[in-house]
Amino acid sequence: MKIDVGKKILSANQEYAFKNTQLLAEKKILCLNMISSPGSGKTTILTRTIQQLKGKVRIAVIEGDIRTDIDAQKIRATQAPAVQINTNGACHLSAAQVNAALRELPLGDLDLIFIENVGNLVCPSAFELGETAKVVVLSVAEGDDKPAKYPAIFAKSRALLINKIDLLEPKGQVDFDMERAKADASNLNRNVEVFPVSARTGQGMDGWYHWLERLLDAPG
Amino acid sequence: MKIDVGKKILSANQEYAFKNTQLLAEKKILCLNMISSPGSGKTTILTRTIQQLKGKVRIAVIEGDIRTDIDAQKIRATQAPAVQINTNGACHLSAAQVNAALRELPLGDLDLIFIENVGNLVCPSAFELGETAKVVVLSVAEGDDKPAKYPAIFAKSRALLINKIDLLEPKGQVDFDMERAKADASNLNRNVEVFPVSARTGQGMDGWYHWLERLLDAPG
Repeated sequence: MKIDVGKKILSANQEYAFKNTQLLAEKKILCLNMISSPGSGKTTILTRTIQQLKGKVRIAVIEGDIRTDIDAQKIRATQAPAVQINTNGACHLSAAQVNAALRELPLGDLDLIFIENVGNLVCPSAFELGETAKVVVLSVAEGDDKPAKYPAIFAKSRALLINKIDLLEPKGQVDFDMERAKADASNLNRNVEVFPVSARTGQGMDGWYHWLERLLDAPG
Repeated sequence: MKIDVGKKILSANQEYAFKNTQLLAEKKILCLNMISSPGSGKTTILTRTIQQLKGKVRIAVIEGDIRTDIDAQKIRATQAPAVQINTNGACHLSAAQVNAALRELPLGDLDLIFIENVGNLVCPSAFELGETAKVVVLSVAEGDDKPAKYPAIFAKSRALLINKIDLLEPKGQVDFDMERAKADASNLNRNVEVFPVSARTGQGMDGWYHWLERLLDAPG
């Protein structure tokens, strides 16, 4: 009984996800579903990316949060359009919510839409939103064992941003074995692109920008 | 339909939670359900607490993880008993899982059981496990806006450990407004006890140990 209803919910979600994929394809928009624990730095990555690509790539953001519009406000401060979804307790965004948000955006004037999912390394990985690809963000403060402990999202993501690498200096405050994290992520997903970055200082972000630009040229 | 089945699942959980509460009361064991994002430092808090209270308080740990027994191994290295539950993808521990784990522990020889829930600031808050109280852990690296953005668990917890305060020095690397976090948590729950700590360095941990000892004396 539990399982059947679970399947039903997933399949209703899948229908909306398919609609979103079609709509995005028709409008030739790349769409990335950003997933991470709370506080890994997704919003800072997005605001910095928007600033960097301004004039070259037309970006909008769909913000998912349980409550508040703190993150949408930060995105709007960059002049990029942002739609806030409040899930009111739910632990992930649904494709239906994203569908409603897409209809509020000026799709004809966009190249790239980021979906900033609810901060949760578990549940959002199970709900397709119709995105072109998933991107997972891990902060070094969370520890290098997270790909092994939370494998689903690392297995499904096309890129992994390892954020807050500025916290690795001065040495000794944050233990994070970069090689272990990379190896565990690659074991789960041999095609994942890994970018060690600091969205705060800008360190390492160029690789991420170039990857985005390559993806915009050839989304397949 | 969705809602009814949701209620049914919660109520089956509630039955096991009630059994756990009864069992723990009968054995006079305090049980704390530790909830946080991935990588906030729950395991380090527990290993340090076990070491500190050794000889005074008999502690065991029920470890919840999606996969791996990395955390249970760390607990067992302190000589405390640990039972690992692997949820195989599920985003929270259930009361039935905890019931099975309790039956593997030497309950007659324990004063305190910590349940280390799956790293997830959202879902575990909705599932009672029969615990005496919930404790939420927030790392300063996650940011001071988390109580406002993820209110449920902050509203339900009897204590809030704000961990990794050693990262606040040198100034400027991690922005975290302690007063804002405390104020937002207190607005959600005026009785919450807040402990700014570094489980790594030991800073601030004394307040937490004393709180535990008071609770062991008078769990109500």
